[in-house]
Amino acid sequence: MQKKRILSGMRPTGKLHLGHYVGALENWVKLQDEYESYHLIADYHALTTNLNSDSIYDDSINMLIDWLAVGLDPKKSPMFRQSQIKEHTELHLIFSMLITVNRLERNPTLKDQVRDLNIDNVIYGHLGYPVLQTADILLYMGNFVPVGEDQVSHVEISREIARKFNNQYGEVFPEPKPLLTKFARLPGLDGVAKMSKSLNNTILLADDPETVMTKLKKAVTDPQKVRKGDPGRPEICVVFSYHSKFNQTELEEVAKGCRSGELGCFDCKKNCASKISEFLEPILEKRKYYEKNINIVKDILADGEVRGKKAASETMAEVRSKMKLG
Amino acid sequence: MQKKRILSGMRPTGKLHLGHYVGALENWVKLQDEYESYHLIADYHALTTNLNSDSIYDDSINMLIDWLAVGLDPKKSPMFRQSQIKEHTELHLIFSMLITVNRLERNPTLKDQVRDLNIDNVIYGHLGYPVLQTADILLYMGNFVPVGEDQVSHVEISREIARKFNNQYGEVFPEPKPLLTKFARLPGLDGVAKMSKSLNNTILLADDPETVMTKLKKAVTDPQKVRKGDPGRPEICVVFSYHSKFNQTELEEVAKGCRSGELGCFDCKKNCASKISEFLEPILEKRKYYEKNINIVKDILADGEVRGKKAASETMAEVRSKMKLG
Repeated sequence: MQKKRILSGMRPTGKLHLGHYVGALENWVKLQDEYESYHLIADYHALTTNLNSDSIYDDSINMLIDWLAVGLDPKKSPMFRQSQIKEHTELHLIFSMLITVNRLERNPTLKDQVRDLNIDNVIYGHLGYPVLQTADILLYMGNFVPVGEDQVSHVEISREIARKFNNQYGEVFPEPKPLLTKFARLPGLDGVAKMSKSLNNTILLADDPETVMTKLKKAVTDPQKVRKGDPGRPEICVVFSYHSKFNQTELEEVAKGCRSGELGCFDCKKNCASKISEFLEPILEKRKYYEKNINIVKDILADGEVRGKKAASETMAEVRSKMKLG
Repeated sequence: MQKKRILSGMRPTGKLHLGHYVGALENWVKLQDEYESYHLIADYHALTTNLNSDSIYDDSINMLIDWLAVGLDPKKSPMFRQSQIKEHTELHLIFSMLITVNRLERNPTLKDQVRDLNIDNVIYGHLGYPVLQTADILLYMGNFVPVGEDQVSHVEISREIARKFNNQYGEVFPEPKPLLTKFARLPGLDGVAKMSKSLNNTILLADDPETVMTKLKKAVTDPQKVRKGDPGRPEICVVFSYHSKFNQTELEEVAKGCRSGELGCFDCKKNCASKISEFLEPILEKRKYYEKNINIVKDILADGEVRGKKAASETMAEVRSKMKLG
């Protein structure tokens, strides 16, 4: 039986952090054996909230290096930039005829962004973000999209557009389904619910042990636990949530020591930092390899773009034929 | 000095009528010597108000034959379909980041269409019509766009987008200006202000003398002039407005005869029909030639698409370089 297809993508924000790993990459790595995966560097999407594209290429390359370093296998899954495969924009335009402005305005993720980013005048392309995302998915006939809860509403829009196209022009597209990621979030060092580059509260996949240690030292802990001996509450501690991801074998011990007061925050952070660095060690090593051999990275991208382009062209040939565009 | 560039386009609605000639083509033919012209068959635009694309290819070919028949010269000016040059959709996506939803909603032509077509839920791509039009113009570095009054607001949007791009990424695009057509409208046979395929009130460029005569006989005239001898009012007569375009030498005579009552509507229409057919004769002949030699038409289109593609690629290379898309 043919493997089902997945389309997974990220905006190129430069070097990735642990939040990206836990929220997406770990999952992508697991999925690449079970599914035929296509990995999209969504550089056009980045423009919806930031027009400045000066660093978009470097950011894309840095993100790609992280993808490779965590174990995404370019032999299995092509990796490519949205901006290099014109078919994304073609299918986007066609799909833009299949959905109303009202429907897009009801998109809850857009509403959140408008609130969070203090936007009082939505950009046309920002409103159409889920239309472009639909083109990204359906260009590769994606059956599944690995997403967090906040993206489920976008996948619903994609299903509607697929259905609308199939009804109007004949069966071409699958109706994609979300593949929800379980462990979706890692809190930021500052205690904010999510690691985020713009909040400067992240541990990068590229951070060396010293940097990880320095960052961990500043991590927010239980404010009631001021010094060793004070009892702490692991359930509200950022560092403990890192332990729960990267130090599962000692988890009970750490919780116990924290609650009793026997384990001080300094030692706890030191231990956590070393566990994170242990986890990062092979990633850092691979990163260094790819940084030294940047041509290999460029070749991987070029190869991915040839393969992505091939799949995209096949889809568009079918779309054009069904639409009788000539 | 290099000639200035013009982008002119039409939606492929099949065989064209006298209204298209008077409102646009006559002007295009004149302009093709003074300017470097690019002629766009706007097949994607057609989808904004009609998703059914079954006849889009045949309609495009029929429109192209009319363009050639009225004297547009494919050696001077490439003619091509929007859907065959992917760069239209690429630039459209980029431009969609440079304008707000509010700005597009203020577009008066959209408001008119929403009212005329009884649309209560605007399609996303319909709202973005002027964005795609901007991509059409600027892809060919159009300095001018020959338009009627109702399109001037679109050209204003194009100017804004050009300015916004140039400010953000560096000088690439001219700010296009409208070239207003003087004699812009020919009333329909039914007395409605405009010939329109959907109202079935047109005289086609492909109509033979018999058909023209049959259609003219049914044309609306002054209701006060019931029979020969009754005085008529040329200024409210559809047939007289056709005389004023196609029978200028006899115009005063016709007006005088109508007012005095000496000239009956039947004779007046017969005269008008023969003048229109005289005008159409060389067009019909060329039409027949191209219909018999459809491969020549297809070659002209293929050649136009190669040339259009070349110009479009050059523009996109500059756009990508300025945006540092890699």
